[in-house]
Amino acid sequence: MERKGSLMTYRPDIKVLDATIRDGGLVNNFRFDDEFVKKLYLANLKAEVDYMEFGYKASKDIFKEEDYGDWKFCNEDSIRRIVGNNDTDMKIAVMADVGRCNLERDLLPKSESVIDMVRIATYITTMPAAIEMIEYCHSLGYETTCNIMAISKANTADIEVALEMLSKSSVDVIYLVDSYGSLFPEQIQTLTKQYLACAEDCGKAVGMHAHNNQQLAFANTIEACSMGASFLDATVGSLGRGAGNCAMELLLGFLKNPKYNITHILKFYEEYILSLKEQGAVWGYNVAYLLTGKMNLHPSSAITFTKEGRTDYAEFYHRIFDMEC
Amino acid sequence: MERKGSLMTYRPDIKVLDATIRDGGLVNNFRFDDEFVKKLYLANLKAEVDYMEFGYKASKDIFKEEDYGDWKFCNEDSIRRIVGNNDTDMKIAVMADVGRCNLERDLLPKSESVIDMVRIATYITTMPAAIEMIEYCHSLGYETTCNIMAISKANTADIEVALEMLSKSSVDVIYLVDSYGSLFPEQIQTLTKQYLACAEDCGKAVGMHAHNNQQLAFANTIEACSMGASFLDATVGSLGRGAGNCAMELLLGFLKNPKYNITHILKFYEEYILSLKEQGAVWGYNVAYLLTGKMNLHPSSAITFTKEGRTDYAEFYHRIFDMEC
Repeated sequence: MERKGSLMTYRPDIKVLDATIRDGGLVNNFRFDDEFVKKLYLANLKAEVDYMEFGYKASKDIFKEEDYGDWKFCNEDSIRRIVGNNDTDMKIAVMADVGRCNLERDLLPKSESVIDMVRIATYITTMPAAIEMIEYCHSLGYETTCNIMAISKANTADIEVALEMLSKSSVDVIYLVDSYGSLFPEQIQTLTKQYLACAEDCGKAVGMHAHNNQQLAFANTIEACSMGASFLDATVGSLGRGAGNCAMELLLGFLKNPKYNITHILKFYEEYILSLKEQGAVWGYNVAYLLTGKMNLHPSSAITFTKEGRTDYAEFYHRIFDMEC
Repeated sequence: MERKGSLMTYRPDIKVLDATIRDGGLVNNFRFDDEFVKKLYLANLKAEVDYMEFGYKASKDIFKEEDYGDWKFCNEDSIRRIVGNNDTDMKIAVMADVGRCNLERDLLPKSESVIDMVRIATYITTMPAAIEMIEYCHSLGYETTCNIMAISKANTADIEVALEMLSKSSVDVIYLVDSYGSLFPEQIQTLTKQYLACAEDCGKAVGMHAHNNQQLAFANTIEACSMGASFLDATVGSLGRGAGNCAMELLLGFLKNPKYNITHILKFYEEYILSLKEQGAVWGYNVAYLLTGKMNLHPSSAITFTKEGRTDYAEFYHRIFDMEC
């Protein structure tokens, strides 16, 4: 087993992507006020985070505008309200879900947009649609990633085919996504090797997007990193759906590149993330998420259980066990 | 790198040790009522946990009885009040700190005690005293472990000497202890290999005791396990000093030995651990612990900070940074 880099040095190829607004938007229907988003943008700039993801490019034919905050749709003017022309070194990303967007209508050519990267989220069963979207975004001038979700439910042979399809595409980064927070570091190691074996030959990078159902989001992220993944997703305070994500403060505490500055993230955390929690936003590890993670299930049942304020975890375990086994 | 076992099978050599009362006692000065301890004992029995640690054998010359609950001292009659003669397959452990106990006075011969194992906790600088205690406990008929604490501050050559000393002793299990929660899985891997290289030749086992300062207690425990460590410490709900320990519910969710039954631990968690938290006991991961972990510091400053209810993490970071760098 060869690790890339060491705990004493840093790899300049590593890019940190802040997904706080995008994954965190799943907690509060993207209803962040402009001050929150602006202060996060400034904190990320000062911390020298490499990419900031602002939200989804969701189709207004499918989702009603009144049901969500601006970051579900990421109109060009919404982003510019925060970043102006973004005359900075930090790049701006948005996510587009296969089947839930209309990029032909909603995405400007790169020359007219402050967005730098479009991340295409797909299940492994819809790879051809994902690749069409990747090629379209690439043709408009954007960097692209392909985030194959729920990989813990896919079989190795299908993953291999998906990776081969992506190797022939224009995609820049192939993301390993542990949607259910069910993978252990050993599995992340094997998967990262499989992804890299395909990606490296064609000059693509591999990324990691982790969830914290089993308190392994940070561990899995640094495991993927040490195996060679170079795009690392994190959110401040782990803000994200269900058990949340790899915490930005943990990740920046780990990475050795002197440019990263954790202080500005800590300040944003104490001023804005803690108050979000006080205002009633609910996310983060609890035993219900551990159980859906352990069972390799979508966290939706644990999210409902948690929202109901329930703590009868043994009963919850038996219920999901009966449903699945 | 060779892992021992696989994610699909189980290793019969693995023993799970519940340290809830002992490490958790550092949170509430060992003031657990008998119902709590008895229900935990019964839950561990039903879950088929292998060892349950009841607390410390601390010297009453050094610590006043009125300042602590019974489990600081683990008198024979205190333990028997809970377990009777412990006519079960679960073994009973206590911990004794070098320099803080009087085993000649306070430890009965094994034939007169329900205690099965004495765990000797030592810093690497007091190995000769630890080994004297190990030999004394062994001569009384007990199983023994040596828990070398704060290993993240020790250098590799000193660890090697300590391991050689232990290899010539009667100790049964050599424990890797990440007291400050500062070690990353890569380091746990290297250390476990180093410990095993010494232990295996002389028929000793290696154990892992992790802390959760960087949300790595579970990840580090399963990393040590997969490298061959076979004694795994956990506490229900991570109850333990500061950021707490590897959660028993996470560990039993991971291990594949069919005898382990997570349900009884979940029930104890929801009935007793949650109410302990409601009653004001304070433990578990927060950003202050992440920062002492990252800085490889004793968690005491983070414990004080947390008890004061402070959340100015950036200020805390600068303060500990100034003190150390």
